[in-house]
Amino acid sequence: MSELLVGRHAVLEALRAGRRHFYRLWLEGDADAAPKGSVAEIVQMVEARKIPLRHVVGGIFDRLRNAQLNPQGVALETGPYPYTDLDDLLAIQARKPDVLFLLLDHLEDPRNLGTLFRSGEAFGVDGVVLPERRAAGITPAVSNSSAGAVEYLPIAQVKNLNRTIELLKKSNIWTVGLDVAPGSICLSEANLSGPLALVVGNESKGLSRLARQKCDFCVTIPMTGSVDSLNAAIAGSIVLYHAFLARIPTGPTRAS
Amino acid sequence: MSELLVGRHAVLEALRAGRRHFYRLWLEGDADAAPKGSVAEIVQMVEARKIPLRHVVGGIFDRLRNAQLNPQGVALETGPYPYTDLDDLLAIQARKPDVLFLLLDHLEDPRNLGTLFRSGEAFGVDGVVLPERRAAGITPAVSNSSAGAVEYLPIAQVKNLNRTIELLKKSNIWTVGLDVAPGSICLSEANLSGPLALVVGNESKGLSRLARQKCDFCVTIPMTGSVDSLNAAIAGSIVLYHAFLARIPTGPTRAS
Repeated sequence: MSELLVGRHAVLEALRAGRRHFYRLWLEGDADAAPKGSVAEIVQMVEARKIPLRHVVGGIFDRLRNAQLNPQGVALETGPYPYTDLDDLLAIQARKPDVLFLLLDHLEDPRNLGTLFRSGEAFGVDGVVLPERRAAGITPAVSNSSAGAVEYLPIAQVKNLNRTIELLKKSNIWTVGLDVAPGSICLSEANLSGPLALVVGNESKGLSRLARQKCDFCVTIPMTGSVDSLNAAIAGSIVLYHAFLARIPTGPTRAS
Repeated sequence: MSELLVGRHAVLEALRAGRRHFYRLWLEGDADAAPKGSVAEIVQMVEARKIPLRHVVGGIFDRLRNAQLNPQGVALETGPYPYTDLDDLLAIQARKPDVLFLLLDHLEDPRNLGTLFRSGEAFGVDGVVLPERRAAGITPAVSNSSAGAVEYLPIAQVKNLNRTIELLKKSNIWTVGLDVAPGSICLSEANLSGPLALVVGNESKGLSRLARQKCDFCVTIPMTGSVDSLNAAIAGSIVLYHAFLARIPTGPTRAS
């Protein structure tokens, strides 16, 4: 089944990463209008790979906008999202001892998922694990919210996330839950170096009881104020940033 | 003009904060169904304040869902968002020397705005400044995305954000831009203690050239990977978290 990626970032990064099949690019506007900026780059890549290109006025772009999407003048028909096998994720540890994984315990909002993946890719996450059921998958909306970051991230879907936590622990990977429960370690006091898997829970329910119990320990982000919780993608990103810092003790190689 | 706040968090926090006028609560379902959890708390507060309550099946709730909103069974008709004067924000410094302000340089996406406000309220932001034009204001969608945090935050709208930056500098408040431009200081090396105003730019264009020039200095978040940028609300939240930590040198008073 084909998918329709929309938005300049998602389309550009999908082409750059080159992990999907590409069927067709839809470009909004007349064929004689010269594309500019990132759209010009998209057109160049599509032509170089001989992917069919169609110019459209209205039509599919009006329908995308009616569906509350912002295609920014480009839509790319592709094959489905190329998920990775869990075994391939686990194999990463052999060549990268301080591996950093992100496990999502039933996040439901595609925008939260996308922005968290964007942060994960920026902070050196080596792989992501998602449950197959009762959770958002890697839809085009997620790719869009991630600014195309999911096109680079190895992402595996599993039947049972708790069993994955056990499997990671057997591989000597520290499993760390993000949770506000009593007994959680304050983020500024947590040691996030070494092989690590961060488990982020659902937007409203947080981590499941079983996932929390299975984790080696939980971290919590200190805060103040009247509304005492953070957006799940924000909280996850803050912890990933600190895990990233813990992996570059001599200072960042690149500031961006 | 009245506004319609939707979602349990936004409605509950608006009532708790008590800064708006309240006209009417719409509750989804039959009058004889007993409300539970946070909805019960909402109904209790509404009854105590003698705010009219109407039970509705379908109707307004169907229309809200059709408009891509998630009312979660509650909608509260209120007066407009109670903006603060800039002078009142500036007066905070007299009683709180290490004041923390957040200035938004034309953020456009209501969800980014809302999640950044939620983080700001959690990380002790004392006040927010928004430009009046070409920027998202405090709409019910923003209140919803902020989980109600905007109901507590003092937020001022100004005609010219660059003039506000100058005014803050005259009050000896350090103005710090969040920017990837060359010359920016790496976040882990930046001193964020003392009176400080963080300026966060537009989602795609970043800080305006003038705002960047007017700031005392800019910070950048180190990162790696192929998609070398973060969501604006994520990046702003990470810097606010570090400004919050810089204000509690003896450790957090409350972990949540």
